[in-house]
Amino acid sequence: MTAIAISRRLRGTPFTARVEAAGVKAYTVYNHMLLPAVFESLEADCRHLKQHVQVWDVSCERQVEIAGPDAARLVQRMTPRDISKAAVDQCLYIPLVDENGGMLNDPVAIKLAEDRYWISIADSDVLLYAKGLAIGGGYDVTVEEPEIDILAVQGPKSDDLMARVFGEEARGIRFFRGLWLSFEGTRMYVARSGYSKQGGFEIYLNDRALGEPLWDALFAAGADLNVRAGCPNLVERVESGLLSYGNDMTRENTPYEAGLGRYCGDAALLGCIGADALSREAGSGPRRMIRGLRISGEAVPACRDPWPVTVGGEGVGQVTSAVWSHDLKTNVAIGMIDRAHWEPGTAVRVDAPDGGREAEVATLPFA
Amino acid sequence: MTAIAISRRLRGTPFTARVEAAGVKAYTVYNHMLLPAVFESLEADCRHLKQHVQVWDVSCERQVEIAGPDAARLVQRMTPRDISKAAVDQCLYIPLVDENGGMLNDPVAIKLAEDRYWISIADSDVLLYAKGLAIGGGYDVTVEEPEIDILAVQGPKSDDLMARVFGEEARGIRFFRGLWLSFEGTRMYVARSGYSKQGGFEIYLNDRALGEPLWDALFAAGADLNVRAGCPNLVERVESGLLSYGNDMTRENTPYEAGLGRYCGDAALLGCIGADALSREAGSGPRRMIRGLRISGEAVPACRDPWPVTVGGEGVGQVTSAVWSHDLKTNVAIGMIDRAHWEPGTAVRVDAPDGGREAEVATLPFA
Repeated sequence: MTAIAISRRLRGTPFTARVEAAGVKAYTVYNHMLLPAVFESLEADCRHLKQHVQVWDVSCERQVEIAGPDAARLVQRMTPRDISKAAVDQCLYIPLVDENGGMLNDPVAIKLAEDRYWISIADSDVLLYAKGLAIGGGYDVTVEEPEIDILAVQGPKSDDLMARVFGEEARGIRFFRGLWLSFEGTRMYVARSGYSKQGGFEIYLNDRALGEPLWDALFAAGADLNVRAGCPNLVERVESGLLSYGNDMTRENTPYEAGLGRYCGDAALLGCIGADALSREAGSGPRRMIRGLRISGEAVPACRDPWPVTVGGEGVGQVTSAVWSHDLKTNVAIGMIDRAHWEPGTAVRVDAPDGGREAEVATLPFA
Repeated sequence: MTAIAISRRLRGTPFTARVEAAGVKAYTVYNHMLLPAVFESLEADCRHLKQHVQVWDVSCERQVEIAGPDAARLVQRMTPRDISKAAVDQCLYIPLVDENGGMLNDPVAIKLAEDRYWISIADSDVLLYAKGLAIGGGYDVTVEEPEIDILAVQGPKSDDLMARVFGEEARGIRFFRGLWLSFEGTRMYVARSGYSKQGGFEIYLNDRALGEPLWDALFAAGADLNVRAGCPNLVERVESGLLSYGNDMTRENTPYEAGLGRYCGDAALLGCIGADALSREAGSGPRRMIRGLRISGEAVPACRDPWPVTVGGEGVGQVTSAVWSHDLKTNVAIGMIDRAHWEPGTAVRVDAPDGGREAEVATLPFA
């Protein structure tokens, strides 16, 4: 076990003191910020998440605010998803691409007004991309990172807990929609969203002084719901087929390869960057795509460098996330598999660091 | 001590296996990549660095390659430093700024040819900024992250070790200049540079298959020089006044505030982004500036959230890096101090997490 070195550059959050008091055992770093990765253990954290309710410090899902007359035009320029029909307060999952159609991020955009968007980013500096585009292209917008820190409430008892703290209105929020709800007199955006398939909400805290009071209020109200501190859980997210930018897809991959073709409109018509490359790929289909894999044997080690996937000794893909699923009683994984071998059920071999293993291509999600 | 969670997103390097075999105790994350932070202890690592020679895995200093007819124009657009006089194979420290004159990075640029630059970046996605500017502004360039991984050789015996592995030619490299030298038949860029004041080189490895052979060759050749694995050392870098982007200055600070006014030319004449803001600040002078601080008392804890600096109860600045210096027998720190209080020798108070302490403003470097 290697420690994480403390410095200002790996930013703390309004909740870090509470997270540490709750016994966080491992951190990752995401958007230059600390993101808890383990409290008790991956397995125990996962079991609890599926049964009860957890409070997650996901402040690292930083917002890039794009505001001004050209805001919608700039957001549309970055993504092949058609954003023209979005309603105010709607959340939209929008792959962002570069001039080659390579993915730069896979954020959730929130349309706050016709001329104001928050882009809730995965782990890359979308702020700098948007600033570069705005400056280079002369867009009439401001591009900033507002002081918004997201606290997620996840798990099957999320509705009950949220109703107790934010009022019964919270129950009525539809998936990927949001409402402005009050906590201690301050209105903040609350969406039904989050990086698990167990149900839940994300609270866009807009006053850091309310961070610890909000955390404490959720714990006080949820004692009988068995609330505890949690975090995005590797087991649950792989079982649920939730992709992780930087892990499962990178700038080397198009949205089609990442299995996100359903979010791609006609890039050329939309005026999206990388339209040529994306249109070609929409025509030919991707040569490889995101898949699940069931990997045989004992629990796999953590995946850092991608693990080669082979058939008859030939490379046919790679595994980028892998973990033991105690519920499915097998190792579950996410990887990219070449077209000739991506059919679910295809037998492949995975070169894990502790040796070769038999594996089988699977559909996502696993569960 | 909190562990760092392993995943592909926190990229390993060609040297990670060697770094782990050498007993790395703590990592930080830098440009989405692992950067060792401690081997034996901050103090022991520092003492060794000042006496012998160390091999550092600083692969995280990623390169942004800007190539094509408009390369120089695009680089100049991002920085207020005049790059027009740079020689081929010269290294240039260039603050990068946004439309407000706020710092986005403080990389070293290497001019490889009139139409080809590598920007060796601090911790932010300059790749995305440059891509955004290039796409938005229609520059005729390609912007990519080449597979270059830097291995640094640092410490007073660096010249001896480098001469043994790369030939006597290495000794002749001047500060912030580079040469293309051969290792096992492959030519790679070698510069006299690095993130310490103990002297040394940075080797721009351009073939990952040669990573472990290069590491091993340096250790084999340096056994009698007491070579060991090291990393940028917090004690040495604060004593030496080496700034850390993301720690000591951020997008909230101009280059002038960061004490980098000597690298700023006439931004308006140069056509640099943020010229209005920079020209204003060049005229008025910054309202706060980077300073050293000597902080009294026992060894301070690690600095995560900036520590307020006060005079008579009024906020006059903040500390962003702080550590015990065993050589200077005091705590040394770097922070931003308001103009009225930034004179060296000014008595201030620092609110460290374990209590208030007397401190004194100092010039950088300390040693």
